[in-house]
Amino acid sequence: MIEGLILTKLKTFPSEKGSVYQSLSVDDEGYVGFGESYFSFIEYKAIKAWKFHKNMTLNLTVPIGAIRFNFIDLREGSATYKDRFEITLSKENYQRITVPPMILFGFKGLEKGSNIISNIADIIHDDEECVNIDIDKYEFK
Amino acid sequence: MIEGLILTKLKTFPSEKGSVYQSLSVDDEGYVGFGESYFSFIEYKAIKAWKFHKNMTLNLTVPIGAIRFNFIDLREGSATYKDRFEITLSKENYQRITVPPMILFGFKGLEKGSNIISNIADIIHDDEECVNIDIDKYEFK
Repeated sequence: MIEGLILTKLKTFPSEKGSVYQSLSVDDEGYVGFGESYFSFIEYKAIKAWKFHKNMTLNLTVPIGAIRFNFIDLREGSATYKDRFEITLSKENYQRITVPPMILFGFKGLEKGSNIISNIADIIHDDEECVNIDIDKYEFK
Repeated sequence: MIEGLILTKLKTFPSEKGSVYQSLSVDDEGYVGFGESYFSFIEYKAIKAWKFHKNMTLNLTVPIGAIRFNFIDLREGSATYKDRFEITLSKENYQRITVPPMILFGFKGLEKGSNIISNIADIIHDDEECVNIDIDKYEFK
């Protein structure tokens, strides 16, 4: 596991009319503030990689579909520098990943239907602090 | 329209690999604080009604499927007391509804696939401030 990356199992409340799935609460360990929230769709077999944020902390859940995530620690001096972490999140494996700044990440859509990431970020999107890196620079597993 | 209910068209960023859909930003008119966020699934033809919150402000988006919403103003003294408002939200009609406290609401799933509401609420769920009312008490349109 990468230091500072937090994986949290979330409560779900099944119901015949439709379940309720928790995402993030102000009391949660991974909550560091609210800046903005958005949904990122990823098509079947498509890969969005690589990206890291200099300042943003992300809180990611996958309420529909299935998405493969790859993370690489870019923080020099971190106990897990250059370590990798891979996980598949979905409605079935419903967990939240809290991603601190300076962690490189990419993700791939695994289902033919919709694959959706919900991100609740602690700051508003800013091109200055969001860095894109060529997809061929690292292997996506 | 019901006074204080805010309907906001949201930015979307189409992309071949998968689009990005904005949901809520700290700078938005409807943002009054972050308490918790969750997803509420609603099955095809199922209706969840009726409910109102004494204190919570909701920020609702529908990133997948289509959902019919009904709102009724329960605030005595409001300029729109007892007025109704109905709208269908979907990925195609992608807007955010900000729902202030004391607005009665219900919703119905319109698609056979998944219908999902994302709610970003300004306070944490509390049974004391959330009031359920029998589905037959008001007509769902």
